[in-house]
Amino acid sequence: MVDIASRVYNHNFKIDPIVRSLIDTDFYKLLMCQSVFRNKPDTTVVFSLINRSTKVRLADLIDESELREQLDHVRSLSLSRGESTWLRGNTFYGKRQMFRSDFMQWFENLRLPPYHLEKVDGQYELTFEGAWPEVMMWEIPALAVLMELRSRAVLKGMGRFELQVLYARAMTRIWEKIERLRQLEHLRIADFGTRRRHGFLWQDWCVQAMQEGLGRKFTGTSNCRIAMRRDIEAIGTNAHELPMVYSALADSDAELAQAPYQVLADWHEEHDGNLRIMLPDTYGTEGFLKRAPDWLASWTGIRIDSGDPATGAENAIRWWKERGEDPSKKLVIFSDGLDVDTIEQLYARFHGRVKVSFGWGTLLTNDFRGLVPEDGLAPFSLVCKAISANGRPTVKLSDNPNKAMGPADEIARYKRVFGVGDQTARDVVV
Amino acid sequence: MVDIASRVYNHNFKIDPIVRSLIDTDFYKLLMCQSVFRNKPDTTVVFSLINRSTKVRLADLIDESELREQLDHVRSLSLSRGESTWLRGNTFYGKRQMFRSDFMQWFENLRLPPYHLEKVDGQYELTFEGAWPEVMMWEIPALAVLMELRSRAVLKGMGRFELQVLYARAMTRIWEKIERLRQLEHLRIADFGTRRRHGFLWQDWCVQAMQEGLGRKFTGTSNCRIAMRRDIEAIGTNAHELPMVYSALADSDAELAQAPYQVLADWHEEHDGNLRIMLPDTYGTEGFLKRAPDWLASWTGIRIDSGDPATGAENAIRWWKERGEDPSKKLVIFSDGLDVDTIEQLYARFHGRVKVSFGWGTLLTNDFRGLVPEDGLAPFSLVCKAISANGRPTVKLSDNPNKAMGPADEIARYKRVFGVGDQTARDVVV
Repeated sequence: MVDIASRVYNHNFKIDPIVRSLIDTDFYKLLMCQSVFRNKPDTTVVFSLINRSTKVRLADLIDESELREQLDHVRSLSLSRGESTWLRGNTFYGKRQMFRSDFMQWFENLRLPPYHLEKVDGQYELTFEGAWPEVMMWEIPALAVLMELRSRAVLKGMGRFELQVLYARAMTRIWEKIERLRQLEHLRIADFGTRRRHGFLWQDWCVQAMQEGLGRKFTGTSNCRIAMRRDIEAIGTNAHELPMVYSALADSDAELAQAPYQVLADWHEEHDGNLRIMLPDTYGTEGFLKRAPDWLASWTGIRIDSGDPATGAENAIRWWKERGEDPSKKLVIFSDGLDVDTIEQLYARFHGRVKVSFGWGTLLTNDFRGLVPEDGLAPFSLVCKAISANGRPTVKLSDNPNKAMGPADEIARYKRVFGVGDQTARDVVV
Repeated sequence: MVDIASRVYNHNFKIDPIVRSLIDTDFYKLLMCQSVFRNKPDTTVVFSLINRSTKVRLADLIDESELREQLDHVRSLSLSRGESTWLRGNTFYGKRQMFRSDFMQWFENLRLPPYHLEKVDGQYELTFEGAWPEVMMWEIPALAVLMELRSRAVLKGMGRFELQVLYARAMTRIWEKIERLRQLEHLRIADFGTRRRHGFLWQDWCVQAMQEGLGRKFTGTSNCRIAMRRDIEAIGTNAHELPMVYSALADSDAELAQAPYQVLADWHEEHDGNLRIMLPDTYGTEGFLKRAPDWLASWTGIRIDSGDPATGAENAIRWWKERGEDPSKKLVIFSDGLDVDTIEQLYARFHGRVKVSFGWGTLLTNDFRGLVPEDGLAPFSLVCKAISANGRPTVKLSDNPNKAMGPADEIARYKRVFGVGDQTARDVVV
């Protein structure tokens, strides 16, 4: 077992670069990348880092040359032979050869494209521009690099035993969460915490603790490298970037209204079973469900990633019933800002009514709240999003206006096209 | 830094025997051994293990063959060259060549004598018989072996992460104690926890945590091997076995009454400064001080190891004043069943009035109370004592009748000779 405290104390770039592999990323990135590679390979996109927690002044905390060093290291990575073999040969979601040969060949030759980095007002402006399938692969490593450099900056200067006790406290906290979750008899929960993890070693520890503590209730991790190394399931489906970019590419309001469904039509062609999970909130869940084509009702489930999760699930249940589907056969995956309390509440409310599953992110892999002075290790809300596609701005509305993105006039147009009315704002913690 | 949880999980006899060196023992054992080697080399003694916590049924918990294996391993140990060099060349208590050449030569050839082991009523009867200087060296390793085998028995079958969290909790607890102790500005405290430690690796961790957390307030460890390896002071003076054996050897009541002072007269010849610490409670502190020769009042200090510690210190202060000594120049070492609360209270009461120092034992190196079901790792009161010398039983009265030892008629005789009246019983936890 890795002695995290000592490794953190001794941090050595050669032993512990932050991102150590191209597949130290979320599984859904690979699925989406393959889909993009097939359906929209020539789209030019810009991804940009956005720190929603402006009071965390990253550029004051993190040394620019250290950041460049880590980002340059990410650019030096390529798929290793073992990783390629695993992706080609492993069974994902019960399916062999999930990744097609042409995609794998492209991926084997992939190096991440250049980045653009500037300091602006205490923050880093970090952007990536280029072909969509390449640029999109920056999202997770960019976030992980910034999150971990921030952790390292705060930990620097702590004593060896002080550090070990810090990790002891964090381990105890996670374990107490696991002990509570163990009580939920039919729980199904996965790690979704790569992007905003405290650090790689720490995520790896958390995943293994979940594995030991929860047994079969732990369904897997979104992190491909950890899934491969620990021989557990890689988990994930698709994300907002698909409807956001498809929508930006739409040439008319009519096309825009159809774009989110076009994403899922493309997905429908490629995937079945537990990969047919819709993510309905990009432009408001209510309107999305109302206007959804009938074939979507036959999909396996839904992922609730913004807004009040219970309301979201209730709406989905009602919608399935309206479309003549049996909700008890449907999968509802909660993945927004979860912690044990919310998991327990949602499980109690929905277990038996639907198949419930949880994608637990930041408060699994980065819960150091209250453990250092001034709460310097508290997680914060950093994202890396597609902000334009072929020169047109992207828009996200979400079910929480605090998660909305895009130019004001475009937000207004999207609200009109998707018929989004009043929304309830919710704090975005992570 | 050692990953204790993994080592515990993987326990492998070759990597982690319980006692790994002849100097994995208390420093005062070596000082006393040298004294015995010089003054009473031909005394035959019997040492015996006594489990005062009879509800901990050691013979049910610990496998006899594992116990024999560990004890046999101790018998296979001899002083290594590096250890010998350290003992010969190091400065102890500011003095070079603390250990004389004839003693070192003897020690370099020492192998521990045979043991006698039997199961009786759920306990192990473990005795050692032979020449005093050889047999006395069994005390600490015998205790450490039994304590750690009991820990290992309880930990067996725990998962890797469960174990790591157990140690995380224990580390957090120790660190919180250290954080409280750090507040005591002029604190002086040493580790006295070898004999009843949870395990060797754990003691080593605790000592290093004290070193980092307390800095100069941490004055050293009683454990010679750890002192050597971690380059810190080895701490200790003398113990009850000296007056107990000297007293058993006395041929008359008059000689008996003088025996405890004879011990200190021999000590006086050999040592000065901070090694002149009297341990007055073997046959009752009150009478000991009353009848003490005047030269003893000039000694550097006193160790309070039974009875109410505040009362013991007050009595010593009064006695010093009566003998015309300035108590503020005297050292009072508290060493009985300490934990942070008592340390804080005693510090608050005596700091400034005397020089206060603490020898912190079991609740430093073995505080796993409440961390496993049925409190299976709670420390318990195991001792290994001289029970006879040249065929005569030894007696200890102590300031706490629950710590008394010896045949009833001999106890009565000692009480008469030493004028011990009513005593207050105190629970013996550790």
